[in-house]
Amino acid sequence: MTRLSEPDHTGAFVEHLDLPPHRSGPLDGLGFTVKDNIDIAGHKTSYGSPAWRDAHPAPKHNALCVDQLLAAGARCIGKVVADEFTYSLDGESQFYGTPRNAKAPDRIPGGSSSGSAASVAAGLADFSIGTDSGGSIRVPASLCGLWGIRPSLHRISEAGVLPFMPSVSTVGVLAARREHLDMATRMLLRSGKAPARPLRQILVLTDALEVADEAVRTAVQAALTRIADRTGITPEPVRFSQIADAGASLRECNENALRDLQTAEFQSTVGNWIEAHNPELGFTFSMAYGNVLAFDRIAALDSLDRCERLFEAINSFLEPGVVICFPTTPVIAPQKGSLNSLEAVIDFYDRTMTITAFSGVARLPEVTAPLLTVDGCPVGLSFAAAHYQDEFLLGAVKTMLG
Amino acid sequence: MTRLSEPDHTGAFVEHLDLPPHRSGPLDGLGFTVKDNIDIAGHKTSYGSPAWRDAHPAPKHNALCVDQLLAAGARCIGKVVADEFTYSLDGESQFYGTPRNAKAPDRIPGGSSSGSAASVAAGLADFSIGTDSGGSIRVPASLCGLWGIRPSLHRISEAGVLPFMPSVSTVGVLAARREHLDMATRMLLRSGKAPARPLRQILVLTDALEVADEAVRTAVQAALTRIADRTGITPEPVRFSQIADAGASLRECNENALRDLQTAEFQSTVGNWIEAHNPELGFTFSMAYGNVLAFDRIAALDSLDRCERLFEAINSFLEPGVVICFPTTPVIAPQKGSLNSLEAVIDFYDRTMTITAFSGVARLPEVTAPLLTVDGCPVGLSFAAAHYQDEFLLGAVKTMLG
Repeated sequence: MTRLSEPDHTGAFVEHLDLPPHRSGPLDGLGFTVKDNIDIAGHKTSYGSPAWRDAHPAPKHNALCVDQLLAAGARCIGKVVADEFTYSLDGESQFYGTPRNAKAPDRIPGGSSSGSAASVAAGLADFSIGTDSGGSIRVPASLCGLWGIRPSLHRISEAGVLPFMPSVSTVGVLAARREHLDMATRMLLRSGKAPARPLRQILVLTDALEVADEAVRTAVQAALTRIADRTGITPEPVRFSQIADAGASLRECNENALRDLQTAEFQSTVGNWIEAHNPELGFTFSMAYGNVLAFDRIAALDSLDRCERLFEAINSFLEPGVVICFPTTPVIAPQKGSLNSLEAVIDFYDRTMTITAFSGVARLPEVTAPLLTVDGCPVGLSFAAAHYQDEFLLGAVKTMLG
Repeated sequence: MTRLSEPDHTGAFVEHLDLPPHRSGPLDGLGFTVKDNIDIAGHKTSYGSPAWRDAHPAPKHNALCVDQLLAAGARCIGKVVADEFTYSLDGESQFYGTPRNAKAPDRIPGGSSSGSAASVAAGLADFSIGTDSGGSIRVPASLCGLWGIRPSLHRISEAGVLPFMPSVSTVGVLAARREHLDMATRMLLRSGKAPARPLRQILVLTDALEVADEAVRTAVQAALTRIADRTGITPEPVRFSQIADAGASLRECNENALRDLQTAEFQSTVGNWIEAHNPELGFTFSMAYGNVLAFDRIAALDSLDRCERLFEAINSFLEPGVVICFPTTPVIAPQKGSLNSLEAVIDFYDRTMTITAFSGVARLPEVTAPLLTVDGCPVGLSFAAAHYQDEFLLGAVKTMLG
């Protein structure tokens, strides 16, 4: 095991920095960290891989999203750990270590934005910017007890962010306080929109509840009761088969749809580079990459059609003023080192991605809120709205949760 | 001047290929070419730059869009010339030559999808796939007398397409026949949508007409009369100030908005690489790149906000069932070698991009149709619809033009 930097007690940082704001703005006084797949000028971007880091020069320019935040008054305090090639949801990096989950120190932080979550959960940063394809912001936010947002696909510029899965990947934010999530996200969305329409309906995706542990389901119901009391809006259950075709299963969003699109796109970005350069790979990534190598790209092209149909069905269903709610992850954070059997890995990943793929395939904005506690550990409750309704969603979350 | 491949009489091809279809499909019997910034497995992608080509290994996988077309029954017949780093609208490459404009052989083909246009215009390919940010499909289609489409931003997967300007760049199609443009585009859009709503209104963007040469304006009016006769729908003039704020000018879409966003994103993609590696650059590109180097990235961040507001204004205005029409380019193709003074370059680029930035900033699908002839040379007439209304637009174009 190679450790590439001196970790602090959180293990979150690849590099401590102190980049002052470009100018004063709404984010004055806030400090943020940057996931190590997002460029910071003059500092190498590792993509979570020492081999990638060594093969690529330091960028000359900050990623646009970094410059947007610096120009809004925030200060960048460091570059933080990402899982290898950001291709993981667990946050256990062979090369950079496992950033500490401050709310559950014997458990994984979740990934791939593991350092983003750990740096904020430890109180060292007000917020962090990360990326999310299959859940890489939402999962660590859920498992570390933070707010997190995966915005609508392509609402935030990806210039200076390493290309990962162009039809799936997003830039987003994690924060300890809702107000900071809201402010930082609005700076990045750069919207001039008039105040969004009011919240009029809260749906609960029952299929996602069924995937979750029973204790998570119970905690969700208690949180929904509080939301109903606060808003006067009674959450209404909805089944995935009412959203897509009769007989459709939530699993379809992941299986033979988003998962295949992700794999095909990953082959074109990281895969081409790995196959040309044969770099040193971590053990866990190597296992996962075996599936990428064995992937039948042609047979999987039909998954693109399925993704498009699911996008259309879900976005036709989610009318303006509607949010849909579900547990962010089906479980609390697994114990560190417990994902050491194929069964454990498959159980964690398949169940988690069955839920996270819903917003992924539909390109929805999704906010995860740190509302649930199970066995003393945090789990997030997620709220999603139709594609491009990011500002509405942020307003609705404020209405529901204050 | 380095010539990297033996040109045929069109000068369009970097490499002749004969990649058979993956399977039979709707595109059976059609042959297509691929712009040289889109990956073909086992063949280096040059990005229009010999230095980039030499520094990067051949990709292991086809771009997803290439695989989609091969899986729909089409045959890939070659890799075709792109302008250096696709950062041009003229099609005069110092390294790969100037592909021949079959309809106006003493004139430029337009770029940066110059080889795409030339290969189709010469009848060697039924269609070609290219990319478009500032007009790189629409301009060569217009100047070479072809059909072309820039789809809605991010409707077609960019996996295996060299990252250029993530918030602006699209993959699209050029074709000699409308039917082929329609079929190939629908394969790439992979939509399961029900038949699109009918065309109910045709708007004409008068500001774009005013930017165009008088002879182009006259030709547009004649074409609109034929469309009115065919559809029974009388095109209605609309000013940009009715779409955006009162007093707004069409020029705003380019100036201090899309142009700055493009430059900032170009710094993060190509710029970082050029500044780290100091590669051999062509003279014309070097001149343009001087502006990129001198660009004030921080001062230009406000352009992102302007882009977002223009996106929202234009898409609020363009209701379902509405198309908006304007000349694709303000001029016919300039004579080869005539863009040799700063004045000539500025006149061609500024006027052209004042028009092309409209769909760019609003992320609209835009089809250019080879309907106009001025001084014996082709010019395109463009039709755009709201973001993500690609299938409606293809249907409306069929209704209007048959």
